[in-house]
Amino acid sequence: MKTILIVGIGAGNPEYITVQAVSALNRADVFFLMDKGSAKAKLNALRRDILQRYVRGSAYRIVEALNPERIPDNGDYPGAVGQLNSDKGEIFERLIATELGEGQCGAFLVWGDPSLYDSTVRIIESIAASGRHALAYEVIPGITSVQALTAQHRVPLNSIGGAVEITTGRQLAMGLREGVDTVVVMLDAQESYRLLVGQGWQIHWGAYLGTCDEILIDGPLDQVADQITQARHTARQAHGWIMDTYLLKRIEP
Amino acid sequence: MKTILIVGIGAGNPEYITVQAVSALNRADVFFLMDKGSAKAKLNALRRDILQRYVRGSAYRIVEALNPERIPDNGDYPGAVGQLNSDKGEIFERLIATELGEGQCGAFLVWGDPSLYDSTVRIIESIAASGRHALAYEVIPGITSVQALTAQHRVPLNSIGGAVEITTGRQLAMGLREGVDTVVVMLDAQESYRLLVGQGWQIHWGAYLGTCDEILIDGPLDQVADQITQARHTARQAHGWIMDTYLLKRIEP
Repeated sequence: MKTILIVGIGAGNPEYITVQAVSALNRADVFFLMDKGSAKAKLNALRRDILQRYVRGSAYRIVEALNPERIPDNGDYPGAVGQLNSDKGEIFERLIATELGEGQCGAFLVWGDPSLYDSTVRIIESIAASGRHALAYEVIPGITSVQALTAQHRVPLNSIGGAVEITTGRQLAMGLREGVDTVVVMLDAQESYRLLVGQGWQIHWGAYLGTCDEILIDGPLDQVADQITQARHTARQAHGWIMDTYLLKRIEP
Repeated sequence: MKTILIVGIGAGNPEYITVQAVSALNRADVFFLMDKGSAKAKLNALRRDILQRYVRGSAYRIVEALNPERIPDNGDYPGAVGQLNSDKGEIFERLIATELGEGQCGAFLVWGDPSLYDSTVRIIESIAASGRHALAYEVIPGITSVQALTAQHRVPLNSIGGAVEITTGRQLAMGLREGVDTVVVMLDAQESYRLLVGQGWQIHWGAYLGTCDEILIDGPLDQVADQITQARHTARQAHGWIMDTYLLKRIEP
């Protein structure tokens, strides 16, 4: 039997890690670091920092593997992500087969929480279900960028007794559902918040949350949308990548 | 200047606490424990356990205060919660005035994460904004029961690229918005999931998540709804209270 730990390490601040996650890291023989693109170096540096801070001793191995890139989606985003996950699955399975000995424990360090816009759980579940490996796996929650955002802005997520929608920039660009008054947007490469200018929204925006590069902007969307767009462009030029999240609340009349 | 720390301590498992929250607890001179009703004794026992585990030394005070009860809402739930928060605000303000010395630091230990269905941030913000006290405050995120639920069931929250609605039993009972296919329900005293039986949903349900009393049930809603209702009744009788959360996913045709 081999064991895989899917460990949420929190979003940005190394102190977002939980005591449970620290225990989990100390059970692992091998850490698999997977990232791609321009944020890869930075995010993997943060992962290495977490290992140095929290893993006692140095009797562990780090295996870095190249993450495949998502193919152009031609309008079928879930299909393209499905293909990407299938490609990733082959890599994960090879890592488990070749880098993990019998009785050993490997860990994937997931940014934020493994349940939110991350494919690791889905992929490992599928490998375990295939029956090709005797594989146990556990999921350890972590602080998401949504929670980092609300904590840093010191705002509640929900209105009193109200619902909250968590969505992507892509979904937001296709339009909001009737009656939604609180929305968290992740993975927005298209600055979709601009589509809601003039419609009575308040925004709480954050980039590189929890890190020393953190940027926070909030205010009525109509007043701060340009400032956010400017900040995104400047930061992306400076860092080569950007990771941001925002909360939109409808302003009560 | 006085400082208030609003510390998310995670939902249930004492190891859900973050390193950041442990640091915050160690800055506090006074801990304010506020709970009400039948879950009060148990939840405050868990809070005391966290203090004993993670606070070095014993040079701190614990102040327990009676939380007011919510008045019957007569159909105006936000209004009733607003009144409750106003009542709580008076108590919090008295605690800050009388139990916290100049330059001291007080902490509220919030179940889960302070941003989600908790009023502490709103109340402290309002006291700070009143100008009646020189008050600084910080918010420390914590693992929510939503994250405990998905980790324990080892399921992703969202479908690939899809949106997620976080809502209350009360909102669910009023009907789902068109197009919603992934819903997390909290604070459901009415077993509102029963309203969706026969409509093609999968449920992942959990009670007392992260604690030694944890119960997990999942499956097609039509098949497990009765089992969940039975488990809720049995558990509530055994413990005198219940705290549960569930994730509903529309079964793809």
